[in-house]
Amino acid sequence: MSPRTLHLNAFLMGVGHHEAAWRHPRTDPALITDVRHYRRLAEIAERGRLDSVFFADGLALQGDVRHNALGTPEPLTLLAALAAVTEHIGLIATVSTTYNEPFHVARKFASLDHISGGRAGWNIVTSAGEAEAHNFGIERPAHAARYQRATEFLDVVTKLWDSWEDDAVLRDRNGGRYADSGKIHAIRHAGDHFGVTGPLNISRSPQGHPLLVQAGSSQDGIEFAARHAEAVFTAQQTLEDGQEFYADLKGRLARYGRRPEQVVVLPGISPIIGSTEREALRLEKELEDLIIPAYGLAQLSQMTGIHLGEDDLDGPLPDVGVETEGAQSRRRLVVELARREGLTVRQLLGRLAGGRGHRVVAGTPEQIADQIQLWFENGAADGFNIMPPILPDGLADFVDHVVPELQVRGLFRTEYTGRTLRENYGLDRPASRFAATSGERHDLVVAS
Amino acid sequence: MSPRTLHLNAFLMGVGHHEAAWRHPRTDPALITDVRHYRRLAEIAERGRLDSVFFADGLALQGDVRHNALGTPEPLTLLAALAAVTEHIGLIATVSTTYNEPFHVARKFASLDHISGGRAGWNIVTSAGEAEAHNFGIERPAHAARYQRATEFLDVVTKLWDSWEDDAVLRDRNGGRYADSGKIHAIRHAGDHFGVTGPLNISRSPQGHPLLVQAGSSQDGIEFAARHAEAVFTAQQTLEDGQEFYADLKGRLARYGRRPEQVVVLPGISPIIGSTEREALRLEKELEDLIIPAYGLAQLSQMTGIHLGEDDLDGPLPDVGVETEGAQSRRRLVVELARREGLTVRQLLGRLAGGRGHRVVAGTPEQIADQIQLWFENGAADGFNIMPPILPDGLADFVDHVVPELQVRGLFRTEYTGRTLRENYGLDRPASRFAATSGERHDLVVAS
Repeated sequence: MSPRTLHLNAFLMGVGHHEAAWRHPRTDPALITDVRHYRRLAEIAERGRLDSVFFADGLALQGDVRHNALGTPEPLTLLAALAAVTEHIGLIATVSTTYNEPFHVARKFASLDHISGGRAGWNIVTSAGEAEAHNFGIERPAHAARYQRATEFLDVVTKLWDSWEDDAVLRDRNGGRYADSGKIHAIRHAGDHFGVTGPLNISRSPQGHPLLVQAGSSQDGIEFAARHAEAVFTAQQTLEDGQEFYADLKGRLARYGRRPEQVVVLPGISPIIGSTEREALRLEKELEDLIIPAYGLAQLSQMTGIHLGEDDLDGPLPDVGVETEGAQSRRRLVVELARREGLTVRQLLGRLAGGRGHRVVAGTPEQIADQIQLWFENGAADGFNIMPPILPDGLADFVDHVVPELQVRGLFRTEYTGRTLRENYGLDRPASRFAATSGERHDLVVAS
Repeated sequence: MSPRTLHLNAFLMGVGHHEAAWRHPRTDPALITDVRHYRRLAEIAERGRLDSVFFADGLALQGDVRHNALGTPEPLTLLAALAAVTEHIGLIATVSTTYNEPFHVARKFASLDHISGGRAGWNIVTSAGEAEAHNFGIERPAHAARYQRATEFLDVVTKLWDSWEDDAVLRDRNGGRYADSGKIHAIRHAGDHFGVTGPLNISRSPQGHPLLVQAGSSQDGIEFAARHAEAVFTAQQTLEDGQEFYADLKGRLARYGRRPEQVVVLPGISPIIGSTEREALRLEKELEDLIIPAYGLAQLSQMTGIHLGEDDLDGPLPDVGVETEGAQSRRRLVVELARREGLTVRQLLGRLAGGRGHRVVAGTPEQIADQIQLWFENGAADGFNIMPPILPDGLADFVDHVVPELQVRGLFRTEYTGRTLRENYGLDRPASRFAATSGERHDLVVAS
């Protein structure tokens, strides 16, 4: 096996990423709130030695529920359930910094990291949706304001994760000393958005910091990722775009004192797999035939701010700008895709239905593996964010047919080598920032 | 079996409720962050056919961590993990209304209810601690203000739980209709504390509303319980106090249009169990000998606002008032206990060490069962909140020796009869408040 190996994350969404997945005879939409479904998915991912599973999230009913199986469980709750029935797979939950408090978020991820034995990851989002703001009594904050808050939020969370040094817990039963309070630190954070005294009310977790993941592709988002993220999910349609994003992100790391190997870049790919190319294309066609245009139009509107009606379906995409605050990066991707390939609106909806702007590849396991290898070996990816069109079958097909092909090519592990998510991603465990100061040993946190 | 039967909840806390449990040779304090420990506890509770397990919670490191095994996982995270590995046991998590947003809380409990197949319960607290406020950038709100917020919070949460009618999801694959959006309702809440448009982004959960539990014993707390709670945890030292509380609470229900059987009253009891009385008293003495006075003093201070030092240990409790805002009810209980029994401060700490003001009973399984039966048959309890002094052994002893005694007496179930937590507690499933209005069938929630 080559020294550099792929990382694979299973991006799980209801009964599949294709927006018509719930209508396909190979899925059962009654499973979207059933923990046994997600357990099965996690077990399949673990059987394939994947690094992690991941759930996206939003804080409102987004999209048109008349025409899609929406309403999946809250990710942290679901991943905690999966932690109890899996052993190796990493567990990455999306949580917003805009509508949460850092104390809660630090504590929940530390709890999940303890419960899972070091397998927790946090996909940090700032929640661009207007409907989300209206579930929290405010108007949607501006893009820059959301990222300013996110930056301070992350500062507080990581301080809280560091607030117990690794060796703070003594468990000296005879001496009656449970912990060394000189190694448990108030953080006394007082910033623009948050005031948090600390310490956290749980000991330092197995990974020190649960893995930090980010997916924003706006300029603020990429800069945030360069500064903080350890794994990056990204939507890239072409190898050239993938290479450009990869080089851009890795090139920004030095200014934060970070090395290229400290961030794992994972473009999304929705693999439509058949034992022959014809079979794969048939599945793709079956899904396409189940698309409901009204749903696609609502998705397009929510994702890009481009509002169109059924009358527009058979014309070209109207001339819309790409410089919209907020959903900017996805809007540009969609507009460029339509222009590059001269798509009608209906055709564009078909292209987006599979992965909401992520790349869709239909083919045999070998063809899918070729694409993965091409990007991996040509500076566009450290691994992939796998988005099966239908679940569980699409994930099982990937694990049972594409993964073995990648293993044969020496590109992917055949057994788990690490114990934690961090170790599987090849990332270091951070030290507590407070560890150096503990020589002072003043009792910071004894309750009065 | 008599028509009226006991309800039993296992109140789980680290390696036991006795504050010196972590020092006792029959426990292992390394287990307080280990999900296998909690899984074992849940399995024991389920083996005993108990109604539910429950975790208390605080949003700060409270108490003196130098001398006790503090820092357990966040309850919702932990209970989600337990949902995946249990089948029958109810799962009750404490979540504060003071430092949370109703949208998150509604969603997490609905998610847990789906994942567990209808076994979620919410212990509603308003967070009296000053250290908690300082982890959220504010000064501690006044007692009345916290309860006002809690009332509006609960209003929003239950509206969100009702926002999808039970039959909103169609799953009509051929017709392309996933849900009837006329049965999914924006809640458009605009109140003093919250503005929440809704609907919730998950369908109505198996119980309709996860079980509502409350434990406040202040006047505001009891009134809140009378209005909203379906199960009430309470600390009562004597049968007379238990009867008074029980009659008081049940008597308040009519003004909210509720019947006595719609609320289950569960006093706390910490059973110290031995196969002989002498063995039980020996275990009690072993635990007492492991008490660290400095820890007890810090607990007393945190729980009641009474600040004493080690010099005060062998004198009587100084003459302190009982009318302190916030921790009022527990302070009165402690002061009255010390006066009634003429305890020194050291003796008082010993009495509080077992259950922080809850009743401690040492004896044989028959003696424990006698006490439970006495309160149950004399208007002081509908069941009990079982607080084992050491874990897992104290719970296993209760399940293996006290539960069979209660079953023989016809006081407790021998098999689960209900499918959900509500059914096991004998409580109705609430209908959605929006169900009656759905004749109008206007599409309230379709994304624009």
